[in-house]
Amino acid sequence: MELKNAQVVVLGAGFGGLTFCQNFCAPNARITLIDRQNHHLFQPLLYQVASAGLSAPNIAQPIRAILAHKPDFTVLMDNVVDVRLDERTIVLEKRKLNYDYLVLALGSITGYFGHPEWERFAPGLKTLDDALRIRRQILLAFEKAESEKDPHIHEQLLTMVVIGGGPTGVELAGTFAELRAHVLAKDFEHINPKEARVILIEGGPHVLGTFGVNLAESAREQLENIGVEVRTNTRVKNISSRCVELEGGEKIFAENIIWGAGVIASPITKKLGAELDKAGRVKVNPDLTIPGHPNVFVLGDMAAVTNEDGSPVPGVAPAAMQMAKYAARVIHEEVIYPGRADRTPFKYLDKGWMATIGRSAAVAKIKNFEFSGFFAWLAWLLVHLIFLVGFRNKVAVFFSWVYSYATYKRGARIITGLQEGSKTDLGDVI
Amino acid sequence: MELKNAQVVVLGAGFGGLTFCQNFCAPNARITLIDRQNHHLFQPLLYQVASAGLSAPNIAQPIRAILAHKPDFTVLMDNVVDVRLDERTIVLEKRKLNYDYLVLALGSITGYFGHPEWERFAPGLKTLDDALRIRRQILLAFEKAESEKDPHIHEQLLTMVVIGGGPTGVELAGTFAELRAHVLAKDFEHINPKEARVILIEGGPHVLGTFGVNLAESAREQLENIGVEVRTNTRVKNISSRCVELEGGEKIFAENIIWGAGVIASPITKKLGAELDKAGRVKVNPDLTIPGHPNVFVLGDMAAVTNEDGSPVPGVAPAAMQMAKYAARVIHEEVIYPGRADRTPFKYLDKGWMATIGRSAAVAKIKNFEFSGFFAWLAWLLVHLIFLVGFRNKVAVFFSWVYSYATYKRGARIITGLQEGSKTDLGDVI
Repeated sequence: MELKNAQVVVLGAGFGGLTFCQNFCAPNARITLIDRQNHHLFQPLLYQVASAGLSAPNIAQPIRAILAHKPDFTVLMDNVVDVRLDERTIVLEKRKLNYDYLVLALGSITGYFGHPEWERFAPGLKTLDDALRIRRQILLAFEKAESEKDPHIHEQLLTMVVIGGGPTGVELAGTFAELRAHVLAKDFEHINPKEARVILIEGGPHVLGTFGVNLAESAREQLENIGVEVRTNTRVKNISSRCVELEGGEKIFAENIIWGAGVIASPITKKLGAELDKAGRVKVNPDLTIPGHPNVFVLGDMAAVTNEDGSPVPGVAPAAMQMAKYAARVIHEEVIYPGRADRTPFKYLDKGWMATIGRSAAVAKIKNFEFSGFFAWLAWLLVHLIFLVGFRNKVAVFFSWVYSYATYKRGARIITGLQEGSKTDLGDVI
Repeated sequence: MELKNAQVVVLGAGFGGLTFCQNFCAPNARITLIDRQNHHLFQPLLYQVASAGLSAPNIAQPIRAILAHKPDFTVLMDNVVDVRLDERTIVLEKRKLNYDYLVLALGSITGYFGHPEWERFAPGLKTLDDALRIRRQILLAFEKAESEKDPHIHEQLLTMVVIGGGPTGVELAGTFAELRAHVLAKDFEHINPKEARVILIEGGPHVLGTFGVNLAESAREQLENIGVEVRTNTRVKNISSRCVELEGGEKIFAENIIWGAGVIASPITKKLGAELDKAGRVKVNPDLTIPGHPNVFVLGDMAAVTNEDGSPVPGVAPAAMQMAKYAARVIHEEVIYPGRADRTPFKYLDKGWMATIGRSAAVAKIKNFEFSGFFAWLAWLLVHLIFLVGFRNKVAVFFSWVYSYATYKRGARIITGLQEGSKTDLGDVI
């Protein structure tokens, strides 16, 4: 009955996949971890790369290096093409693999509510390449504005629109407002920081709606204090090149439009033949497996899981990590004592929420304790430093933050990638 | 007679252009500094970005931030299209500028000795984008090799060829050898560090020929100690995709071929109507001006300058910086006391040479004192930290070096840029 060398295949090295690997250990199992990147990305700090505060390697760690001390691990850099549950096979770009247990943790991609054509004009922020592209476009906009004589184009170049008032949108809008006010404005002759606008658009009545009304109001106030124009109850009708059209007909012209309004599950879920929710997530069993496939676990942003009160488990890193630990325990028990694993339903433990807005500005909710401002900001810094993977990165990020706090400067304000494909960006407008 | 608000235009924010701006100050002059990038790049450490030791922002500093405290400075990000000496005009992509004094400091580009077609197959290392591309290709080669079954392709993936035994070539070959041996090998299951080859090809009888025979021999020994195959008196006949053909007919198959064999002056020199040397550099007067144009100075890699003994002033950062200080003094005197500047010929003061090979391995020559090994390496680290621009970068680079020395790890081992244009790189071979 005992499985000899059970093959465990893990797809994705985000918070879910990596936590699974770090928590799984069985003498008679082999793990293969597959990701299309060579690094684990600490997504909660991605917006700081996009706003030139941190450099890309600060928030990424090579997957091989993280798992180097673990034997019986194979790491492959490859793209997942198909998952064939009935054959217990996954198809990668250049190979196939069989599995006894499969862990699906490929996360989410930016979702445009049925308007994929908006992606070109309003990129999302999910990968390091996204962040580096946004950094380049934002810094270039200032360079172009410096020498632009036409007042309309000048204004457009200095306008940034962030769509979506969730944590990502709030953090992006806040950091752009500070970039403009403290960092860039004094280095340019022909740019008045007052002209540079950051507009945050949210369809619902509040930014950070999930945090409750009190914190949402506090967040709005803190955003407005640093000069962000917060527009709630505002819906986007259309997005075209450098233009956001609102439902009322108003048009906002902006060089940079960033999409932070939604994510959908990795498209691979469509190939599973399982029931999905609206956001493409797999409706899993209470033990996180796909119905009919007790050996296939779905973690994090790919899984639609509900709490006991019927509310959905949110798509945040702690949820993915808790699911990963649950799956690691169950598979571990199954491999050692086949058929005897404890599959008591997964329970999400909500430890709290936090979002940063800017210098000494943040909101946080830990259990029933709500706070905002300086202490929420400090808590935010601490929690993110603790969870950032790799000692080296912790030190480097800590140093960057201290430096930026003391000097009002940012450490990664350089434009790269002009050579490759985007050379015309500069010539277009100047 | 006095010039009111003399217009001084500086092209290029490398060592020459930036040093000029930092040393020039006249109450009745306006300076405009133009560069196609938004950052000053500390090129001597570029090879450490290519080999994943440092991140790009570590060795780059925004030009505006460096000059922020100086009034009467305009910084423009633009490409130089033409220089019209007779009209005292420069043409940029989207504007023209007139000047009273012009400082040409656009540096050099990679030169292929009349074989521009080799560039595709053997990229050079001059910009951050070059470095990031090389880093991506080298790290990808290891990822591909990990899952490659065909022994010939496996061998090719693990072979790196560096062409040119000057400081750049030596530093690249040394750092790749260490990357392979210390950093990558233990993270891969199917790669034996002994298999991974680094081959350094030099046409002359010695690597680091300019350093003298003793140091050249020491450098060769130190390179061979860390596993670099040094092939001197070896000329390249042809380069094609993943293949270097030597003059004897031998072919070396290598996934990564890096060109470090030569540079030529920025092509803009061809538009000056001035006499050029073989490498495209302007044959300047002893006061660094273009014959017939006493108001146009040429600095650094664009200028062919000879020492009193007839030997050429080398294309290194200290030479560019000395020329910049000379030009800043002359123009300053001219602007304040027109026609009375002291134009005693420029003299290059050779303070020494150094090149690093690897961990505790380097060669250095300071005046007539030659040394190698640990102390040369320490001197190299110190000098480069001192000259690196920006306090933040000094601290970050110092920390990176201490960390790498203590742990044998590198801090920037991440692959970026797969999304943009090069997505097929991964699929090609796997």
